[in-house]
Amino acid sequence: MKFAMFGAGRIARVHGQTLTEHPDVSLEFVIDPVAEAAESVAKEFGAQVTDAESVFANKDIDAVLICSSTDTHADLLEKSARAGKAIFCEKPVDLDTSRAKDVAQIIKECGVPCFIGFNRRFDPTFQSLWDQKKEGRIGNLEQLVITSRDPSPPPASYVKVSGGLFRDMMIHDLDMARWMLGEEPVEIFATGSCLVDPEIGEAGDVDSAHVIMKTASGKLCHINNSRRAAYGYDQRIEAFGEKGMLQAGNHRASEVRFVGDEGDTIEKPLFFFLERYMPAYRRELQEFVDTLLKGQEPTATIEDGVRALELADACVESMKTGKAVRLD
Amino acid sequence: MKFAMFGAGRIARVHGQTLTEHPDVSLEFVIDPVAEAAESVAKEFGAQVTDAESVFANKDIDAVLICSSTDTHADLLEKSARAGKAIFCEKPVDLDTSRAKDVAQIIKECGVPCFIGFNRRFDPTFQSLWDQKKEGRIGNLEQLVITSRDPSPPPASYVKVSGGLFRDMMIHDLDMARWMLGEEPVEIFATGSCLVDPEIGEAGDVDSAHVIMKTASGKLCHINNSRRAAYGYDQRIEAFGEKGMLQAGNHRASEVRFVGDEGDTIEKPLFFFLERYMPAYRRELQEFVDTLLKGQEPTATIEDGVRALELADACVESMKTGKAVRLD
Amino acid sequence: MKFAMFGAGRIARVHGQTLTEHPDVSLEFVIDPVAEAAESVAKEFGAQVTDAESVFANKDIDAVLICSSTDTHADLLEKSARAGKAIFCEKPVDLDTSRAKDVAQIIKECGVPCFIGFNRRFDPTFQSLWDQKKEGRIGNLEQLVITSRDPSPPPASYVKVSGGLFRDMMIHDLDMARWMLGEEPVEIFATGSCLVDPEIGEAGDVDSAHVIMKTASGKLCHINNSRRAAYGYDQRIEAFGEKGMLQAGNHRASEVRFVGDEGDTIEKPLFFFLERYMPAYRRELQEFVDTLLKGQEPTATIEDGVRALELADACVESMKTGKAVRLD
Amino acid sequence: MKFAMFGAGRIARVHGQTLTEHPDVSLEFVIDPVAEAAESVAKEFGAQVTDAESVFANKDIDAVLICSSTDTHADLLEKSARAGKAIFCEKPVDLDTSRAKDVAQIIKECGVPCFIGFNRRFDPTFQSLWDQKKEGRIGNLEQLVITSRDPSPPPASYVKVSGGLFRDMMIHDLDMARWMLGEEPVEIFATGSCLVDPEIGEAGDVDSAHVIMKTASGKLCHINNSRRAAYGYDQRIEAFGEKGMLQAGNHRASEVRFVGDEGDTIEKPLFFFLERYMPAYRRELQEFVDTLLKGQEPTATIEDGVRALELADACVESMKTGKAVRLD
Repeated sequence: MKFAMFGAGRIARVHGQTLTEHPDVSLEFVIDPVAEAAESVAKEFGAQVTDAESVFANKDIDAVLICSSTDTHADLLEKSARAGKAIFCEKPVDLDTSRAKDVAQIIKECGVPCFIGFNRRFDPTFQSLWDQKKEGRIGNLEQLVITSRDPSPPPASYVKVSGGLFRDMMIHDLDMARWMLGEEPVEIFATGSCLVDPEIGEAGDVDSAHVIMKTASGKLCHINNSRRAAYGYDQRIEAFGEKGMLQAGNHRASEVRFVGDEGDTIEKPLFFFLERYMPAYRRELQEFVDTLLKGQEPTATIEDGVRALELADACVESMKTGKAVRLD
Repeated sequence: MKFAMFGAGRIARVHGQTLTEHPDVSLEFVIDPVAEAAESVAKEFGAQVTDAESVFANKDIDAVLICSSTDTHADLLEKSARAGKAIFCEKPVDLDTSRAKDVAQIIKECGVPCFIGFNRRFDPTFQSLWDQKKEGRIGNLEQLVITSRDPSPPPASYVKVSGGLFRDMMIHDLDMARWMLGEEPVEIFATGSCLVDPEIGEAGDVDSAHVIMKTASGKLCHINNSRRAAYGYDQRIEAFGEKGMLQAGNHRASEVRFVGDEGDTIEKPLFFFLERYMPAYRRELQEFVDTLLKGQEPTATIEDGVRALELADACVESMKTGKAVRLD
Repeated sequence: MKFAMFGAGRIARVHGQTLTEHPDVSLEFVIDPVAEAAESVAKEFGAQVTDAESVFANKDIDAVLICSSTDTHADLLEKSARAGKAIFCEKPVDLDTSRAKDVAQIIKECGVPCFIGFNRRFDPTFQSLWDQKKEGRIGNLEQLVITSRDPSPPPASYVKVSGGLFRDMMIHDLDMARWMLGEEPVEIFATGSCLVDPEIGEAGDVDSAHVIMKTASGKLCHINNSRRAAYGYDQRIEAFGEKGMLQAGNHRASEVRFVGDEGDTIEKPLFFFLERYMPAYRRELQEFVDTLLKGQEPTATIEDGVRALELADACVESMKTGKAVRLD
Repeated sequence: MKFAMFGAGRIARVHGQTLTEHPDVSLEFVIDPVAEAAESVAKEFGAQVTDAESVFANKDIDAVLICSSTDTHADLLEKSARAGKAIFCEKPVDLDTSRAKDVAQIIKECGVPCFIGFNRRFDPTFQSLWDQKKEGRIGNLEQLVITSRDPSPPPASYVKVSGGLFRDMMIHDLDMARWMLGEEPVEIFATGSCLVDPEIGEAGDVDSAHVIMKTASGKLCHINNSRRAAYGYDQRIEAFGEKGMLQAGNHRASEVRFVGDEGDTIEKPLFFFLERYMPAYRRELQEFVDTLLKGQEPTATIEDGVRALELADACVESMKTGKAVRLD
């Protein structure tokens, strides 16, 4: 199976590496507006630089990876689908939910496989929690608490184009919530503050947020986000059920403990997403390739991408109105 | 200093024991409608059984402990205050907030010391978290997550007279939130479900609840409650600040770990409040006696009791309306 | 039941407190060469000061606690036994093993109950490990690793009269080893160094020691000791069996965790024996009283005291000769 | 740089993978007596099958990896050295120490770089402990406790040819001890039992062993080994110094915790060496290549291999004689 990859940034390199290690696929082309970056990535993985139209026209290309900037996702998804390519696309589908829905409709009509890169579903710890929940270790799931905190805030300039905390950061947690809950939220309340960087507030966004969701059967889910964690990337989940609690903890670089006059200390969590989720990035793309080879359905679909966006939109609305938003 | 104690139940026995161990005080009288219980407790601690009016009339009695049933608190508080006694009273002041406010006003007018038994403020672990926060270990506090889960639900009959989850269970967490935040919440949102015992739902209450509060400076606080925890009494707090996170964990009966084919296992948390908070019950009463002896202000006042009730009322209202409630 | 207590130091106060809380016993007399200390302890617990001979002559006294200095133990044990008193005695029986054996013989002949204060057997964590081992959680016990480290070295002057590290410090661990192994060691090897305080070396002792023992069935046991632990009192046991491992960990004053830029830190272990073993001191004396009241055998007998001394002697010999010592 | 690899087993595949990922080296040849295995490994990494003599004669080959069976190590080391190849060799050098010494002498005379595969020195957790020790976190190192337990015993047939527990299993721990202590042991005592599998005892070996070593400066080190651990591969180190303790803990596959009626459980340790030490196998070979490319000295030399063998020999002698063995 032959692949083309849009984008030549950090994640593109991670995905390129995974592809080259898979025995049954090859990365043929890299496309990026920055020629130098495209050349560098293409060279690293033995591929050629080309342009988007050539990829769509090339009958030999079976699948594309969309790892380019967010504003190009919708367009590339649409064109790739119309060209009949299988698609792996980084989240989000688009910052505008109605545009995302249109793209999802096109994907559906074209009948191409489309996998959205919700990498956290492939993290070994979250996967294990999910498996244990599914196997009934805690019985019926009743409540979920998701803690998700970045080590430090992005520049305010980024916040302006990213869609804001709910659409660029919490969207991952909203997807995790849907995946773990196993049913759709019917009600969502959100609130937030600017406590970390005043420039984020001036740019019209929050950097600290709390959300509560409820599902039709009454399951409750809380998410807390912050753009600051002095101790690194804090990514935890607690799932409460009738038979007990499952906790997904942070990962560390080593298992050394120092016990001294100041206390009993283990390493702080891994610094950020590339460190924590490297195995997840590897596993999601392996899974994409494997589902393609076996003709199976992708695990995280474009519909999942659209639903997460809708929840993020509802958070923004709830924070503005001070009311819980009903979802149908 | 001479004490009288209203009530002869489990907590009365705990408090009686603490009093008899204090070198500077004596427990003189026990008052309880169940004569047998009163006799038994009086005998255990070398006190006499009497009635309420005799206590109020007795000039030798300096202080009273109110550990009787909730519906007697307001009346006993009022009469004790008018009789000039120093008061230690178990929470809540009253299930009706306006009655509680009236009592608080009377206490104020009478000028007697009045200590409300928010025992968790005296738990060694929560106290240590609070001290470390105060000493600036996490810098400015930004967010709080309070997890509070009972091992198993009370009978539905209790729920009907207790005031419901927010007023009988979460009230402790609402007090902890106020104490830890160090400033008043200005906005509160609550939602809940009946997931544990359908009879609780039929009695008009929830057994699972999530709350979010925000303070004037933008601090965020989440509380989650459940009437069920298969693993015992789950009482944890996470405080997030600019310099890091403080976590208060559960207590266990021993520090034995078993590592076998099934995993690496430590003991589950202590079973319920008497096990977990025994040191706190001891320390709160010691503190009450010590503040009296030194003529200092009590740590947890009747105003704290009233504020916690107001927050519980706001939770009930928010859950009904689906809107965040503003507090002034 | 009426008690007399020899000694008026720290442990005497702990034991006095336990006795006064027991409903069925009373502390009548305190005996100590330092009149002031005796007066103070006697006053605290409502007892009288007297001398040893009066105690032995007093038919009303049922039992004695020997908490005086080590060099008085053997003599008081002998006289108490001859006077027909039940005896609780702090370890060691005597620094001289043959004298200890003679005393054990006298005790046996007099037929009085005699309980040696190996307090660690009553620590909740070690007790829980022992119970779980007994219940078969790890199957057949194969190996034991005992870690026992004091926070800081005693003055070299103490080392000179204490009998040295093996007889004054490791003796507790040797008793734990016998208790946990459930069978007698048949071979023991010891070595040591002076790494902490050169004055201890000059006084002819070591401050760091490693021991290996083997039982008849081939079970292996390692003990490591140090007179220094910057992080407090380190008291741990690992028991390995066919089905897994049981670990007894240290105790901490609270369950607060701080996660910051420097790592993820819990409290260090409790400082020293009075903090760590306070519950054990309480429980051992309660057990002594309870076994007396029920006419049962003491849990830790004078024979246990003698055996531990013999193992300490064998350690000293092994360290001198560089050979494993055979025990019969 | 061009490599040839002797051996085509599990470790050969791990090393082959590492080599193919390194940008500056290529694996040219694979040599193994089992033609099929050689073909399979050669194909996997794009290499050719050949024989040993061709490799020694081939001037284009810069370096060899010796991953073949233990009995071929000494011969291949000698011939590779005489052919001027840089050498990476799995431990042990040889089961016979005098043969190992001869080989070390030949390596020295030939002046070729020779790296012995003591993989544990490259484990991220042990490396971090070592770094922290070196940076002075615990001050002067005083004591070391090494726990090393295999999940289940090898067949007794293996024990007969492996050299026994001390030479085939504890040799890794003896190397770790030397590396961590930073100075040579001058005295060693060993004892052991057959507790796991009677056939191992019938084959003349032990399956459970305890060792104590002392260095010239008086540092003490304990090692405990077992051929059985129901909970997986137990690989831990505790280093005690004047300022505190460093502990290296086991690794787990995920960070999920389940808290239920039976306790609070995390995953057991990874199953065995391939799981636990995979990162170490990768890093040791990367380091070998990097030291070659930079013309630096290998981290773990053939002298280290010889010293570890000498310590294993001393253990065997000590266990036989019941005496500590002096090492010069």
